[in-house]
This record gives sequence, structure tokens and C-alpha cells, in this order.
Amino acid sequence: MTSDSKSASQVPEGIKFNADGLVPAIAQQFDSGEVLMMAWMNAESIAETLETGHVCYWSRSRGKFWRKGESSGQVQLLRDFRWDCDGDTLLLLVDQKGVACHTGRRSCFYNAIRDGKPTEILDIEVSPEDLYGK
Amino acid sequence: MTSDSKSASQVPEGIKFNADGLVPAIAQQFDSGEVLMMAWMNAESIAETLETGHVCYWSRSRGKFWRKGESSGQVQLLRDFRWDCDGDTLLLLVDQKGVACHTGRRSCFYNAIRDGKPTEILDIEVSPEDLYGK
Repeated sequence: MTSDSKSASQVPEGIKFNADGLVPAIAQQFDSGEVLMMAWMNAESIAETLETGHVCYWSRSRGKFWRKGESSGQVQLLRDFRWDCDGDTLLLLVDQKGVACHTGRRSCFYNAIRDGKPTEILDIEVSPEDLYGK
Repeated sequence: MTSDSKSASQVPEGIKFNADGLVPAIAQQFDSGEVLMMAWMNAESIAETLETGHVCYWSRSRGKFWRKGESSGQVQLLRDFRWDCDGDTLLLLVDQKGVACHTGRRSCFYNAIRDGKPTEILDIEVSPEDLYGK
């Protein structure tokens, strides 16, 4: 079976990819409800995620698969795979091991406005040096 | 003050727009944690949202502002405005009145896989006819 046919068989019907063959995927911690991050998937990364149960994105900046936690150990285990009414956004319910953000914060969404000023509202839980080595 | 200067002054520094001048925005119910929808914003819709406290998106398909609830009455009141580590995705904590989805479901993310098949996992709470008229 070729990679293409595997992807085609595993991607649920109704999911629509953009002109680059990508669809945005929101990762939410399945029990606490925290929104952890948003990244992009292509058909092959969806197929791999559904097959392995380990979330795999497509890195637009690096132009390659991004198996979450591959370098840092902070993997995302898939608990449920959902998509929206238009089929153009995914919602992944995951069990995030450790922290989701490369800055060492639990969630990537740590910027907010407080007293009229941009403010970081989440603490760094693990230093990036510990996550990725020096 | 021109519209442009208003936008520039209100959009927090560090938010990055794509080539179309847009940034994806995830809407999450502030208290329950439900992820309701994902849509797009431009600088002006961000400025309007921060100024009014009513969420306003930019509709890519209609090419105009999309003041959530304008037709249906199902408005989104902004509770917190957050953005991620890369500044390329927004997380809006909102108080969703009624249902977020145009299908009459609470959340747009009602498709999942059950027993190997695509399955709708949320009920329709309000008929689209009641939301938008016949």
C-alpha cells in the first residue's frame, strides 16, 4: 500500500485542506479543557496520528513532519479526533505529557492584556534548555 | 482618527497576520472550556472586538466583517483576549449566548469517529430556521 492510498483511506471524508494541502488543528487537553496550541496537519500526518495515537503535525517552517515530543519528550496522546461543521478545522483532544509550548509553558496561549498592556500570564514550568538540550 | 490608526493602536504588538492580513482565532467558552469555533480576524476586527467587547471576525467567504450573532442573536461577549508564543493564533475566551454553530449546535466541532465511522456527537439545540428565519 502506498503512502498516498494509506492517507486517503484514513482521513475522514469531509475534511477540507487549503491550497497548501493543510488544515489547522487545535490541541485541547482532554480532561482540563486547556487549549494548548494550534498547528497544521496534512493528510499523511492525520493518517499517522489516527494510526499511532501519537499526534503528528506538519511543520510549515521546517517543511517536514513534526512528531510532537520527538525532541522534547513532551508527547501528545490522542484521545479524540474531531472536526468542525465546514470540515476546515480540526479539534484534537489530547493527553499532553508535560508542557505543550516550546518556551516551557503548559500552553502556547500565555499572552493576554492586563492593565492595558501585553502580559505573560503563564509561568515557565520547564526550561527550554532542559527540553531541548543546550 | 482614521480607521487604520485606530487599528494600529489597538492591536497588541507581537500579533502576526498572514499574507491576507488575517490571523486565526479560536473561541472557547470561558467557564466550561468548550472549544466553540475557529474563525479569522484582521486588524480592524480585533480593534473592534477589543473596543466593544462583542466578538467581530472577518468572513473570508463573504469578504466582510462578521459580527458574531448579528443575524442569529447568538452573540459572543469577550472575556479575555490571548495569543500564542508565535503571535500567529488568537484564543478568545468568550461568553457564547445560545449556540455558536450555524447548524444550531453549541459547538462547531461536532464531528468525530465512532466505531470507525464519522459520527455527529452533538445535538441540534436550535433549528437553523429559528436562528436565521425562513
